[in-house]
Amino acid sequence: MSGSTFGTIFSITTWGESHGKGLGVVVDGCPAGVPLCEEDIQVFLDRRKPGQSRYTTARKEGDQVEILSGIFDGKTTGTPISMLVRNEDQRSRDYSEIASYYRPGHADYTFDAKYGFRDYRGGGRSSGRETIGRVAAGAIAAKVLGEMGISFCTYTRSIGPVTAESFDCSEIANNAVYMPDAAAAARAQQYLETCMSQKNSAGGVIECRINHVPAGIGDPVFNKLDANLAKAMMSIGAVKGVEIGDGFAVTQSNGLENNDEFFYDEDHQLQKRTNHAGGILGGISDGNEIILRAAVKPTASISSTQHTVNKTGENIEINIKGRHDPVIVPRAVVVVESMAAITLLDSMLMGMGAKMENLIKIYS
Amino acid sequence: MSGSTFGTIFSITTWGESHGKGLGVVVDGCPAGVPLCEEDIQVFLDRRKPGQSRYTTARKEGDQVEILSGIFDGKTTGTPISMLVRNEDQRSRDYSEIASYYRPGHADYTFDAKYGFRDYRGGGRSSGRETIGRVAAGAIAAKVLGEMGISFCTYTRSIGPVTAESFDCSEIANNAVYMPDAAAAARAQQYLETCMSQKNSAGGVIECRINHVPAGIGDPVFNKLDANLAKAMMSIGAVKGVEIGDGFAVTQSNGLENNDEFFYDEDHQLQKRTNHAGGILGGISDGNEIILRAAVKPTASISSTQHTVNKTGENIEINIKGRHDPVIVPRAVVVVESMAAITLLDSMLMGMGAKMENLIKIYS
Amino acid sequence: MSGSTFGTIFSITTWGESHGKGLGVVVDGCPAGVPLCEEDIQVFLDRRKPGQSRYTTARKEGDQVEILSGIFDGKTTGTPISMLVRNEDQRSRDYSEIASYYRPGHADYTFDAKYGFRDYRGGGRSSGRETIGRVAAGAIAAKVLGEMGISFCTYTRSIGPVTAESFDCSEIANNAVYMPDAAAAARAQQYLETCMSQKNSAGGVIECRINHVPAGIGDPVFNKLDANLAKAMMSIGAVKGVEIGDGFAVTQSNGLENNDEFFYDEDHQLQKRTNHAGGILGGISDGNEIILRAAVKPTASISSTQHTVNKTGENIEINIKGRHDPVIVPRAVVVVESMAAITLLDSMLMGMGAKMENLIKIYS
Amino acid sequence: MSGSTFGTIFSITTWGESHGKGLGVVVDGCPAGVPLCEEDIQVFLDRRKPGQSRYTTARKEGDQVEILSGIFDGKTTGTPISMLVRNEDQRSRDYSEIASYYRPGHADYTFDAKYGFRDYRGGGRSSGRETIGRVAAGAIAAKVLGEMGISFCTYTRSIGPVTAESFDCSEIANNAVYMPDAAAAARAQQYLETCMSQKNSAGGVIECRINHVPAGIGDPVFNKLDANLAKAMMSIGAVKGVEIGDGFAVTQSNGLENNDEFFYDEDHQLQKRTNHAGGILGGISDGNEIILRAAVKPTASISSTQHTVNKTGENIEINIKGRHDPVIVPRAVVVVESMAAITLLDSMLMGMGAKMENLIKIYS
Repeated sequence: MSGSTFGTIFSITTWGESHGKGLGVVVDGCPAGVPLCEEDIQVFLDRRKPGQSRYTTARKEGDQVEILSGIFDGKTTGTPISMLVRNEDQRSRDYSEIASYYRPGHADYTFDAKYGFRDYRGGGRSSGRETIGRVAAGAIAAKVLGEMGISFCTYTRSIGPVTAESFDCSEIANNAVYMPDAAAAARAQQYLETCMSQKNSAGGVIECRINHVPAGIGDPVFNKLDANLAKAMMSIGAVKGVEIGDGFAVTQSNGLENNDEFFYDEDHQLQKRTNHAGGILGGISDGNEIILRAAVKPTASISSTQHTVNKTGENIEINIKGRHDPVIVPRAVVVVESMAAITLLDSMLMGMGAKMENLIKIYS
Repeated sequence: MSGSTFGTIFSITTWGESHGKGLGVVVDGCPAGVPLCEEDIQVFLDRRKPGQSRYTTARKEGDQVEILSGIFDGKTTGTPISMLVRNEDQRSRDYSEIASYYRPGHADYTFDAKYGFRDYRGGGRSSGRETIGRVAAGAIAAKVLGEMGISFCTYTRSIGPVTAESFDCSEIANNAVYMPDAAAAARAQQYLETCMSQKNSAGGVIECRINHVPAGIGDPVFNKLDANLAKAMMSIGAVKGVEIGDGFAVTQSNGLENNDEFFYDEDHQLQKRTNHAGGILGGISDGNEIILRAAVKPTASISSTQHTVNKTGENIEINIKGRHDPVIVPRAVVVVESMAAITLLDSMLMGMGAKMENLIKIYS
Repeated sequence: MSGSTFGTIFSITTWGESHGKGLGVVVDGCPAGVPLCEEDIQVFLDRRKPGQSRYTTARKEGDQVEILSGIFDGKTTGTPISMLVRNEDQRSRDYSEIASYYRPGHADYTFDAKYGFRDYRGGGRSSGRETIGRVAAGAIAAKVLGEMGISFCTYTRSIGPVTAESFDCSEIANNAVYMPDAAAAARAQQYLETCMSQKNSAGGVIECRINHVPAGIGDPVFNKLDANLAKAMMSIGAVKGVEIGDGFAVTQSNGLENNDEFFYDEDHQLQKRTNHAGGILGGISDGNEIILRAAVKPTASISSTQHTVNKTGENIEINIKGRHDPVIVPRAVVVVESMAAITLLDSMLMGMGAKMENLIKIYS
Repeated sequence: MSGSTFGTIFSITTWGESHGKGLGVVVDGCPAGVPLCEEDIQVFLDRRKPGQSRYTTARKEGDQVEILSGIFDGKTTGTPISMLVRNEDQRSRDYSEIASYYRPGHADYTFDAKYGFRDYRGGGRSSGRETIGRVAAGAIAAKVLGEMGISFCTYTRSIGPVTAESFDCSEIANNAVYMPDAAAAARAQQYLETCMSQKNSAGGVIECRINHVPAGIGDPVFNKLDANLAKAMMSIGAVKGVEIGDGFAVTQSNGLENNDEFFYDEDHQLQKRTNHAGGILGGISDGNEIILRAAVKPTASISSTQHTVNKTGENIEINIKGRHDPVIVPRAVVVVESMAAITLLDSMLMGMGAKMENLIKIYS
């Protein structure tokens, strides 16, 4: 499958560049009969919008979504939902300098290596703005999952050395860095101030928890639910690591501790005493909370002087102009949630015929 | 694509259960004209064979591969290569106990939740033996990549708390835990002895380095080379985390440090001063060593008494019989290498037409 | 893969309904470095535009395409090319009648059966306007193939009982029915006049010839070039039959006659004396002209009174209002050519790594 | 997706060559809980076995299938079902002649053009024996569909100029050419006698009818049920044309006649008065009998002297040795049925989530 499509039944195809006419996504395979309007999408898009705080770029972009197809009488029809966000901030600008060299930490060089040339305006296709399509699609996936009672809680777990130590879900929307811990959020913001004063940038960890996922979702071999989630996460620009449940910490644990024991509760429901596995066993959901984390690298665009090369064969020094997010973690929170929702919904659609009795339930 | 197939052009389809008649794989899309024989495959399979040391199961299985198709005159023909490994160790045994309960840390419960019932003999399809097909296919991918000068170095980076501190490639094959550091290997083995005496198990980290990958491999959005590698790694049973380059450590770094500076060396070749990115920028290889890591959980099968449930609704205690690997990390090293090779080769085949000039080179 | 995407590497995703805001397509996997502008697309779209003759609907629609992404400095960048055509002719209209019943020969009933409800305005997603996206994408595929010297000749072979008897390529654009035979075209138009006077409609056969396709394109088993072409053709609304080369006529032939004999010409080039196979042997192109045909049914929308049912359980009589094409064959010619071009290009991209030496040519 | 895999959820991967060690298939995505044994498969395989009559090759091959995985306690487990048929008739033989030239009507030349060389023993991968895997998989698909009451009736409609004129389902198995008309069958056999005496061969048409398919199966755009069936049919070696319902005859019909009128019968069930559409409207099943036809070319292997070329640049005459089927139509009947069953089942699995209420039915 070509590189801008993700998913098999619920499949999304994103398009667009940072400084082209616009960006968008076609969402195919959405079940028919789900109430949906532009406001449902806009709410998600607004969570990744720039200019929300002083830790994100000052560009004022409306990022207003237009739904072009696939909705009738306020409901999804089962046919492709095409969504468009026009680029507004296309100030004419001189790109000749940025066109001439390769920015460290960016995809400039690798694009040239692969395609022979590149759209160098604002990062082109590898800009963070590419995620607009993912988030618009994620809003739909989340809505569909919501109809089945499945909910998400996604937030910043750490920025640089500052990690959230307490968890208060209601706190997340209260601070500019989307942390579930007000005190940690304050320290993180202080840390970001220092980064900015040093013309430097920070990374961090995003955590996503998914609740009320029924047991039995995902495949046992290559299309493990966690394998698909790992691809979804690592496909987000700047993500360099992915964990499920305890993640890398399991390597320091032992079997006796790491195995989650099963038990029946008073209502004779099967439960697990712990959830080191993060809700997935053998690639298939076990009915517990699904927990995943993505490691986001420090913003590559920094104002400090850097050494690099130009295309005419010289070693040079550069200073990248413009204002840049000192950290992209808070804006990427909704991207992580969107990709997780898209992945989960597709797995659920793919697995509907796992049992013969399910086919008979639908078709007989 | 159904769950037992991986890859798009170079695509592998594995099949088989732990205690069925056998296991195998069909490898489709292998370029024609590559010299290949059963010995090429066997060398890889022997790296994952049980009974290699006292840290792996004592089962004596030949795991002899038979190539059934796709080779003619000693070379690949471009048509599917079907490979079969018969199960030899199918001692008749009483499985009624294991059939009745759900082992903690295993996929027993989730299989039942998804499919309604399961092949409970030795873990069935979710057994570690499923990787036989992956490794047989990986041997082919590695051979094809070798024809282009691409090579792999894969090893155990850590077991439990013991991490390799030095790197001597030639040391890897010298110790039972496949570590590139003899002293760490000795400590790791001591740690495993303790685990075994406590009827417990350990996890660890596997690291894979790929050399001489040309720049320009991978796609910029969903099919990022690292995204596909992440799926490949997380699809291996027991893997709970994946990292590319510095991985989670980037979240503690900053932009100035984490950005790999480009420079031209004396031979006017473009180089990077550091490789925090692990050879991939924006999803596309940058010509540097590709580095990835997988976190492997402690073996779920342990001899200690555990609490769990049976299918008749009772909370019970169990003691899993049989000898089990106290750690699967060393045997999984070749599985990691295989999945990485398969992923890389498929990305290379998918990207051959990225430039119009390439099409003309092949077809005009 | 979800139902609105076609192709694996060169993959297109269409979206849009007859009377929604617009229609479009995202073309992914187009090789980078191909000169492309809106005019290239418009030329193709104009070939399917309504209002070209009195045998097509009188709706005046500009169907002006806008390229939203994927082009930079006048060349394809290798990233998705998103194209949009706004619907202009969205007169407010009363659809309550058409919403209440199922038109014979249309997808009204089957949409309701599948999705539970439907966008009934002008056929919604199953309108002929859906092909706008295919044609816009086909224009790109044809352009890329043109860079390799591959060309198309597509035309109306028959309308109702009238079949072209001579072949003059230059004649095709000269008559309203796109026939390569002026006399037959005149007879066909007379036949259509009769159909119209009887409030009836006609079908016909479209033929597509592709020249200068190198030998070796296509796969030997499921992804035979002809198999993929057959899917491409049958996916066009109203197509009920597909033939390659002599098609159904082979069943009346015999082996001695139907086998195309090979010979070397004076320039020692391998040739075939005949081309009953239509340029494809065992699913793979043999270097000869590729010939395919699609059977198009008579337009389902006719003004005559018809019997059908409404959704409230009654058997009723209906008269479908509005002007309708008495035949869609001429407008579908460019759709056939587009789908053929898309299929062929994707097969060429998929097959670039069929030989090890090709990989070395590109990557070493 | 690579070329030896067909289907998305219910997906089959075939492998093997005519004169290699064996042939087989891996069937993935089969719903769990379906009773299945080797005898179910063997019944299908026996329908394509050589040596059934004097119109098929005299080779005595058992073609005994062995199920290697995916079945437990007599039922499918939802995991891959691997099936193997060993080649028995591998008489050592001198292939040097056949290796040196290109047989007319065969894929010899196109294989060389694509892959650089070929397995020339008995046609290698493009042998009719490749269909063994399809038929073994088709047996499973038919079994699953049977659980939902869906049944098939497939037969020879014509051989050369002889077409079945009456339809008696019970007659099909009574004659060597699988025709539903005893008199036509007798004439067809006489025609074949003449072909054989002239060292020549014949083609024919296979027709497949599928009953009790619920309305609503298939997708409205590229994955139309008929589009997928067309690919399935054309992917069978020797098929050069495909029709749905009235097929090419629709081009001679008119709208008034070709539109199938809907009506409610006495039981208030929606029915169609005619079925020109062959049970599919707009790519989606309409609840009526699905009707499709495949045109099969005359067997390419004939004993008559033919002109062709050798690989050393000479125009030569050849006489292909061995006994060959004068017609492959009767043996291909079960291949057509198998591919139709596989396609239909996959479409049903893909479409289970077309409506939101279906998701809730399965997951809530």
